[in-house]
Amino acid sequence: MEKKWETMDAIFIPKSVAVIGASDNPGKLGSHVMRSLMEGKYPGRIYPVNPGKGEILGIKTYPSLMEIPDGVDLSIIVLPAEQVPKTIRKCKEKGVKGIVLITAGFKEIEDKRGESLQKEITELANRFDIKIIGPNTFGIVNLHLPLNASFTPEFSRVEKGGIGFVSQSGGMSHLFGFLSMKNQIGLSKIIGLGNRCNVDFWDMLEYLEEDPDTKVIAMYLEGLDEPRRLIEAARTRNSRKPIIAYKVGRSSTGNQASQFHTGSLAGKHEIYEAAFRQAGILTVSSSEELLDTAKALALSLLPDGNRVAVLSGQAGPGMAACDVCEMEGLSVSPFSSETQKRVDTLLPPLAIRTNPVDMGPAWYDSEAIRGIVESVLEDRKVDAIILCIMFASANRSAVETLATSLLQMKRKKPIICCISAPNGIWDEEIKHLEHSGIPNYPTPERAAKTLANLWRFKRIKGK
Amino acid sequence: MEKKWETMDAIFIPKSVAVIGASDNPGKLGSHVMRSLMEGKYPGRIYPVNPGKGEILGIKTYPSLMEIPDGVDLSIIVLPAEQVPKTIRKCKEKGVKGIVLITAGFKEIEDKRGESLQKEITELANRFDIKIIGPNTFGIVNLHLPLNASFTPEFSRVEKGGIGFVSQSGGMSHLFGFLSMKNQIGLSKIIGLGNRCNVDFWDMLEYLEEDPDTKVIAMYLEGLDEPRRLIEAARTRNSRKPIIAYKVGRSSTGNQASQFHTGSLAGKHEIYEAAFRQAGILTVSSSEELLDTAKALALSLLPDGNRVAVLSGQAGPGMAACDVCEMEGLSVSPFSSETQKRVDTLLPPLAIRTNPVDMGPAWYDSEAIRGIVESVLEDRKVDAIILCIMFASANRSAVETLATSLLQMKRKKPIICCISAPNGIWDEEIKHLEHSGIPNYPTPERAAKTLANLWRFKRIKGK
Repeated sequence: MEKKWETMDAIFIPKSVAVIGASDNPGKLGSHVMRSLMEGKYPGRIYPVNPGKGEILGIKTYPSLMEIPDGVDLSIIVLPAEQVPKTIRKCKEKGVKGIVLITAGFKEIEDKRGESLQKEITELANRFDIKIIGPNTFGIVNLHLPLNASFTPEFSRVEKGGIGFVSQSGGMSHLFGFLSMKNQIGLSKIIGLGNRCNVDFWDMLEYLEEDPDTKVIAMYLEGLDEPRRLIEAARTRNSRKPIIAYKVGRSSTGNQASQFHTGSLAGKHEIYEAAFRQAGILTVSSSEELLDTAKALALSLLPDGNRVAVLSGQAGPGMAACDVCEMEGLSVSPFSSETQKRVDTLLPPLAIRTNPVDMGPAWYDSEAIRGIVESVLEDRKVDAIILCIMFASANRSAVETLATSLLQMKRKKPIICCISAPNGIWDEEIKHLEHSGIPNYPTPERAAKTLANLWRFKRIKGK
Repeated sequence: MEKKWETMDAIFIPKSVAVIGASDNPGKLGSHVMRSLMEGKYPGRIYPVNPGKGEILGIKTYPSLMEIPDGVDLSIIVLPAEQVPKTIRKCKEKGVKGIVLITAGFKEIEDKRGESLQKEITELANRFDIKIIGPNTFGIVNLHLPLNASFTPEFSRVEKGGIGFVSQSGGMSHLFGFLSMKNQIGLSKIIGLGNRCNVDFWDMLEYLEEDPDTKVIAMYLEGLDEPRRLIEAARTRNSRKPIIAYKVGRSSTGNQASQFHTGSLAGKHEIYEAAFRQAGILTVSSSEELLDTAKALALSLLPDGNRVAVLSGQAGPGMAACDVCEMEGLSVSPFSSETQKRVDTLLPPLAIRTNPVDMGPAWYDSEAIRGIVESVLEDRKVDAIILCIMFASANRSAVETLATSLLQMKRKKPIICCISAPNGIWDEEIKHLEHSGIPNYPTPERAAKTLANLWRFKRIKGK
């Protein structure tokens, strides 16, 4: 990365990390952070700092930052709030470039002292040219290094992948991380911005834009003090990477809670929506939709139009997908006459052979299934395919053959799947498809909604 | 059950089952059905019927139905369509009361012979007083017997529980079954009605209404020939059990596909919606919402009003829940002054203490957490609670204590949870809560939406 990113790199790819307030008391945050670094297999040097301990979890511990013999790139601070300003001064002295400030008790508390303390540390950090993630954050995770600089060791179980998640809420970061684990979706970074003292959403957008490990940027937002700066950061760069935003606070109570939570009002939802759209940022309405859409943008091609072929192994799930397609602005429209002729030849007369196509009656003929998918992929009247197949003993081998064929076919259009089976059946096939750019979803409705979001993204970007 | 249900009981709790068209060729439906019965541990007698085999999968096989020495309650037929009429005659002769007719090639095919064949078998069945599930069905499953009379042995892996699922689509039944397995949701019966020759939705409503194993009836519909009969069946009985319907075919393509699929037009969506509401049937818009809502109706109390307390372990997920609550007609309104005073005392000043409450800052004080939940439960201004907690090392023990306390508290209001953690953490706690009537959902948005559906159901029933 460029010189410009030296400070951010010190936070996300540090050569050494000091944990100021490290502890071996399993009830303390300072011990969770130590476990995160160690169990997360951070490859750099770890320096616990605690005046009362000779070693913590088997690692030599220093009474103060200054006594660490080598340089320190990143300090993770887990001290009480009132000790933070002097610790930042020590960090400057030691040449520390970045800080992850887990400590709470700043702008987010009722007591006015919190706000003035946050002002004080922000001024210090800016004067010293130090970047602070937080305060009031669970931390950050860089799954590619790997570095788990958070108070949650379990974040290290998330698979590494292409989605960078930036969040104003630690709770939402944990939810997103757990959903990623359960759905085996790979993330590049998990970043808890907390109260955003001198690192905000726009900084992360710019940094992740250059980050080779991040393909898609997913954001969770509550309220912003300077929304314009985020919009500008996205618009002026005309981001090459997709940016998705899930913003809460559309309800009156949610908006109010936002002010208390991170010190920022959520603001008028409609204004955000419009501004995001203009800036090329795709908005979504739930945590699950954020993850579903981010996964598709990380893996899949984009459609060039809104015409969808729904190919299903059983009619019902195909119809459910059709309903969502039409509600969400996609068109389940007729095939070209050549394609229709081909499909008519391949399927027995007892099947639904026009779009949506019920391929069920041809399960005994793998070649027919392959032929249908191939001719629909080549149809110039089709921009994308939704493939819905529910496991049954009768279709097992045909689907396995199809999954292999799909990997070999020339694909210039997105294929979004809902291939569903009991655990242990087709897990491998689904993983192979996803690794080849064909994402899978647990229901036909979520597959269809995700494809609609790909098309919405395409239009927002005006490409 | 009453005499009236003798025929249906012969289908769902048969003492003996004949598989007409049984096979040991693993590529044939007749072999999948045999595996379903055997691997599903059906406790009654199994009689494979196949003229060319002495035994199939180790079970003595009969050349014809007539040669079976004992009585047969249920026949599962997997023969070609044209052989079905004469087989039904044989069933009559043998005294068989119920048939699961898996064979396809009836009303659903383009060829007019399909329709006339279906007419013929319907007349025969009615004359003989035999009930036929199907044709063109995957079968039925009674998880409580257990009886897996389907071509999918994997259905036996579904947990037994209180949700009876009745479906017009085999594909949707498979999806629903797999989602149930993955979410560990218990079902009582899975019923594929297929082309509905002389057993239709209203018959199943009446039967499941009396079925002691079924607490909630979940239906998937495409189109009905006589929607009025379903509406009447639900309305006249003023069902004691909740009935939920997911109907597809709202889009033009979906509607058209429905006609091809099971021979019935889906019909105007709005008309169905209104009729269902009048009949006390709750409608939902996706397969996942169907399962989420059915689970809550099977487990949870209903709210007496729309005032919700959102209690969260972290502010972000709580705000996401608030947004959905307000969009879906629930009110996140102020507590009574007594409750608010109590909460103010229990929580440190750095927390959001009004509804929605952020309990995060009190994680080190299990008694405070317990006290908050308890006083909110007792607040006469609160009708229901949404509890959103994301795992972090810091809240682990407090949440485990809370889960135990919840089981002991007097509860007259629904509590809907989104407790989220990596696999292997809190699995037991969540299971205990669910068994005690507190359902859990993977996201705050789905928890809130489900509570909104409980309230919508309460209003529809006018109770």
